[in-house]
Amino acid sequence: MAKVKTIGILTSGGDAPGMNAAVRAVTRAGIYYGFSIKGIYRGYDGLLSGEIQPFSTENVSGIICEGGTILKTARSKEFMTKEGRKKAYDNIIKEEIDALVVIGGNGSLTGAMLFAQEYDFCCIGLPGTIDNDLYGTDSTIGYDTTLNTIIECVDRIRDTAESHERIFFVEVMGRDAGFLAQNSAIASGAEAAIIPEDSTDVDQLAQFMERGIRKSKRSCIVIVSESPKCGAMYYANRVKKEFPGFDVRVSILGHLQRGGRPSAKDRILASRTGYGAIEAIMQGQRNIMVGIHNDSIVYIPLSEAIRSDKPFDKKLIKVLDVLSI
Amino acid sequence: MAKVKTIGILTSGGDAPGMNAAVRAVTRAGIYYGFSIKGIYRGYDGLLSGEIQPFSTENVSGIICEGGTILKTARSKEFMTKEGRKKAYDNIIKEEIDALVVIGGNGSLTGAMLFAQEYDFCCIGLPGTIDNDLYGTDSTIGYDTTLNTIIECVDRIRDTAESHERIFFVEVMGRDAGFLAQNSAIASGAEAAIIPEDSTDVDQLAQFMERGIRKSKRSCIVIVSESPKCGAMYYANRVKKEFPGFDVRVSILGHLQRGGRPSAKDRILASRTGYGAIEAIMQGQRNIMVGIHNDSIVYIPLSEAIRSDKPFDKKLIKVLDVLSI
Amino acid sequence: MAKVKTIGILTSGGDAPGMNAAVRAVTRAGIYYGFSIKGIYRGYDGLLSGEIQPFSTENVSGIICEGGTILKTARSKEFMTKEGRKKAYDNIIKEEIDALVVIGGNGSLTGAMLFAQEYDFCCIGLPGTIDNDLYGTDSTIGYDTTLNTIIECVDRIRDTAESHERIFFVEVMGRDAGFLAQNSAIASGAEAAIIPEDSTDVDQLAQFMERGIRKSKRSCIVIVSESPKCGAMYYANRVKKEFPGFDVRVSILGHLQRGGRPSAKDRILASRTGYGAIEAIMQGQRNIMVGIHNDSIVYIPLSEAIRSDKPFDKKLIKVLDVLSI
Amino acid sequence: MAKVKTIGILTSGGDAPGMNAAVRAVTRAGIYYGFSIKGIYRGYDGLLSGEIQPFSTENVSGIICEGGTILKTARSKEFMTKEGRKKAYDNIIKEEIDALVVIGGNGSLTGAMLFAQEYDFCCIGLPGTIDNDLYGTDSTIGYDTTLNTIIECVDRIRDTAESHERIFFVEVMGRDAGFLAQNSAIASGAEAAIIPEDSTDVDQLAQFMERGIRKSKRSCIVIVSESPKCGAMYYANRVKKEFPGFDVRVSILGHLQRGGRPSAKDRILASRTGYGAIEAIMQGQRNIMVGIHNDSIVYIPLSEAIRSDKPFDKKLIKVLDVLSI
Repeated sequence: MAKVKTIGILTSGGDAPGMNAAVRAVTRAGIYYGFSIKGIYRGYDGLLSGEIQPFSTENVSGIICEGGTILKTARSKEFMTKEGRKKAYDNIIKEEIDALVVIGGNGSLTGAMLFAQEYDFCCIGLPGTIDNDLYGTDSTIGYDTTLNTIIECVDRIRDTAESHERIFFVEVMGRDAGFLAQNSAIASGAEAAIIPEDSTDVDQLAQFMERGIRKSKRSCIVIVSESPKCGAMYYANRVKKEFPGFDVRVSILGHLQRGGRPSAKDRILASRTGYGAIEAIMQGQRNIMVGIHNDSIVYIPLSEAIRSDKPFDKKLIKVLDVLSI
Repeated sequence: MAKVKTIGILTSGGDAPGMNAAVRAVTRAGIYYGFSIKGIYRGYDGLLSGEIQPFSTENVSGIICEGGTILKTARSKEFMTKEGRKKAYDNIIKEEIDALVVIGGNGSLTGAMLFAQEYDFCCIGLPGTIDNDLYGTDSTIGYDTTLNTIIECVDRIRDTAESHERIFFVEVMGRDAGFLAQNSAIASGAEAAIIPEDSTDVDQLAQFMERGIRKSKRSCIVIVSESPKCGAMYYANRVKKEFPGFDVRVSILGHLQRGGRPSAKDRILASRTGYGAIEAIMQGQRNIMVGIHNDSIVYIPLSEAIRSDKPFDKKLIKVLDVLSI
Repeated sequence: MAKVKTIGILTSGGDAPGMNAAVRAVTRAGIYYGFSIKGIYRGYDGLLSGEIQPFSTENVSGIICEGGTILKTARSKEFMTKEGRKKAYDNIIKEEIDALVVIGGNGSLTGAMLFAQEYDFCCIGLPGTIDNDLYGTDSTIGYDTTLNTIIECVDRIRDTAESHERIFFVEVMGRDAGFLAQNSAIASGAEAAIIPEDSTDVDQLAQFMERGIRKSKRSCIVIVSESPKCGAMYYANRVKKEFPGFDVRVSILGHLQRGGRPSAKDRILASRTGYGAIEAIMQGQRNIMVGIHNDSIVYIPLSEAIRSDKPFDKKLIKVLDVLSI
Repeated sequence: MAKVKTIGILTSGGDAPGMNAAVRAVTRAGIYYGFSIKGIYRGYDGLLSGEIQPFSTENVSGIICEGGTILKTARSKEFMTKEGRKKAYDNIIKEEIDALVVIGGNGSLTGAMLFAQEYDFCCIGLPGTIDNDLYGTDSTIGYDTTLNTIIECVDRIRDTAESHERIFFVEVMGRDAGFLAQNSAIASGAEAAIIPEDSTDVDQLAQFMERGIRKSKRSCIVIVSESPKCGAMYYANRVKKEFPGFDVRVSILGHLQRGGRPSAKDRILASRTGYGAIEAIMQGQRNIMVGIHNDSIVYIPLSEAIRSDKPFDKKLIKVLDVLSI
């Protein structure tokens, strides 16, 4: 195993606030410790097409507070094939890149793991996703910002809900993980959350809402994890049908949840894990994600990080239920 | 015409940020000049059902910075009938209310005008609507805040649009007036706006987008006024069909546009016009809206204020077109 | 007078949010209408030192939402001398610049006026200052954003003021003009404002505060225009001495008032006046500031714009006084 | 030990965002589990003067998103004496309060501990302080919000710093603990932090700044923990003296750091620990603080919580140093 001289960095999958802070940290820590850094554009697609540029500290100047990613991002279908990864490897050899730092979510880190295994290549993952669904790290880059964006939106919607005494179903991101929905519901003082981890019976919801009405709460906000079948619209329609007296509305927050200036927590998480990625390379780590657990840097094998069973604290369901009385 | 001793105040129609600041200003200025103030809940409905309370300066303490309306609001169908207004008048006599301040948009001020005419009653309107579609006032209470909320959202969406190189159609409020769409497009640096005041040909949009692509702008944001037929979804689908290569997305901002802490401008507008409403009553005005034109308080006959032809500066279409090159 | 082919653009004096939006508008509208644009760095200093670069539409891409100024800014002492302006003129000839757009406040536009007069040169000013003290335009670029920044800060301070029942003197910018202090006081629901346009007696303040105490208001916020002699600290000390029972605190907002993303209003004002500057050049205007009055573009002779007597609506003092009862 | 029937709740010491969310959680969870709740106003002072009211779920409605504390707060000197605590105990007996939940920082929890020891009384502390200096909990209520407020301010100041190419010393709270300064420096991309945990030599700072100048960074931001002797002003003056060429400015953020709507993280922390306080009472805990460690509720003896040696991760100093190259 030859010594790493040049590190390639890319962002992949859905963009998340704090990706830029991570790109900055990897670049600056890398240069500080004597590595050359190359920025790879448009995720794995840029690896395939050779959109690669040398990066200096100036390339990442002033980006710590910006949303999105200056490296652009994409979901590459080609890299998910053996042929695609072969082509990527050829480009990596050509570009003399010795290690790869991949900032992204589940799919992107799966790609990194396959690549690391097939070519015995040094791949370091950083947890860049708003969904918080990567195993082994307490939080992912972007999750805290998105949580704050959601509660800002719900605070606004509550003004209208209370002024008009309406019931709002607010749909948030997190198709496969209810972290965003459950925690934003607690944080925004919502009356209920509908999440993939917990079966929600419309009857149960109805019961809950009647309880609210008896207590003369005349407005109500329910946070719903997005879902192809049972999103906010589905529940709103069910409730409208069964409770014709209610003034029911739907708000789908959509893409605005991804953008915006990263929160302090996400900038710090990105900075520390970005720095940690360079340390990991110096220590000869090859196939891991850098996360933070219990306020300390941890290395999680990529195969572990992408496990889809990040534990969800069921206690939070009880907390929300009790506090919305 | 007897001297006014007691003033009733209500908010009506869609809630708008700054309504609370207006309620505060009317209440405090009224009390300062020796009037009794009564708060009427849920718009005209509260007038009909008698949900009316005496207001002191404490009732409006701390509300200047809150969105929504502490008086609640509603769209009353009953008040739009002669019978309804008769019932309202009976309650007004019973409550010994001598003048009414109505904070709301077009429909609400139409109700006030009819009531003023039918019962020769002192009705003073305040322009409370995010749509900015009331004639005779440079701005309406809520409009500036909503504009700022929209550009915050578009700033966020742009992060994703640029990171993924996508085309976004963002739908904003303003069914009958393009003020929000056109001005938020200029303010957010969007590439185009689709507004009711201007016919938008999909061909024209196509031409525009091809121009963008030639110039290697790879992301694009189009702001669309909501519309039952031709909203953001309609245009997105048309563009998807005709430009299959583009990655087109839709974001419907929806109800979050109504809420939130009012901007400085809206708080000042609400405070000055609220104060102006009390002055108008002292001067014996009876059937007018208080607005601000050219930085001065103006009185506009309610029949004028609700004219649906508030002039829209077509020059702004050119400005947007030129600045998005 | 030869036809203008190349336009130089600079920002000068204190930075103001929206300056970038103005730079973008001038650049893009200029290019749209066939001019060449040159960016001049660090205000007039860059004109003297030759820090000048050709600008394309890409140079101003994405800056509409950024605070500060990508052209940097400075207060040039040298340009305030005849010799300095001679040197600047020589550089302008060398760079083949035919017209100058200057974005700045009173001092910067005075420089532009002198230069225009001495060299019969086409100078167009844009009102770029948070102080709102330029004559002939309803608002200046940056003023609305700063007003919003101040009220956000005061909203925060009020949380503490009310929780601890304290009196806060909050010092804001605007050494020579009370627009910021008076309007932010109205918008934040402050109890009083101390501004250069109005003499404030400590006795009067005392009387006011005793009135508050009688009414059992136990917290109080006073906004004070910065002043070398009688700033927030001065009044706080006087009140502390005369009312030893009060818990009095001072908060000097300082430089954070200048920065941040521009508000919708400032971005629109900057975009429209920036566009207007190019139109003015095409119309042969030479020594004017472009402003917006009564929602229309206006040209104000630079000598008028810098008059230091922009009218201040004394009525606002009464409004604040009445609404803080 | 009699069964707890009635729980008193108070907020004490410096206000922190999220205190209201904690008051809401304690109140609602308490009522849910069958307790009576009494709100005590103005911290321990209210216990001494008997400013105590029964609380229902409505008392805490809508406060989760508000800064400050509806219970008011104070620093009580009398309660710090034996006589004071005796008087408080007498009132507690009179009011039939069986347990006390105290939301506050180091000093407030010290008072709770003494009271619990002297009267064998059930006192439960919640970590309510922006300083994050309580031992045993990963974060304190208010800390995350303040961190975000600081970086928003620094983002704004950076606009001016870069536009004018200045050096800014920004003073933040945290007299005895550098958590806020160090982490906000990392999160805002500041060039350095001066904290109580680390000795800062002006020579070292000078060296650092010269390094910056060589690298042609022309602006610079240094975050400084407030300190009676060596605050931002002290360092600014030293640097001005030794580097007369620099344009050095100071910004003291002051009280605005305490207020504002709590962040998602603080609202969740407050909700979970508030709920946890009720659980602790049901389990017979008597002299502990409820915190969150490693995403789980933990009970820390009050005597431990107030230890002044919460570990500070020195690694963060290196991270900041490396990332600001």
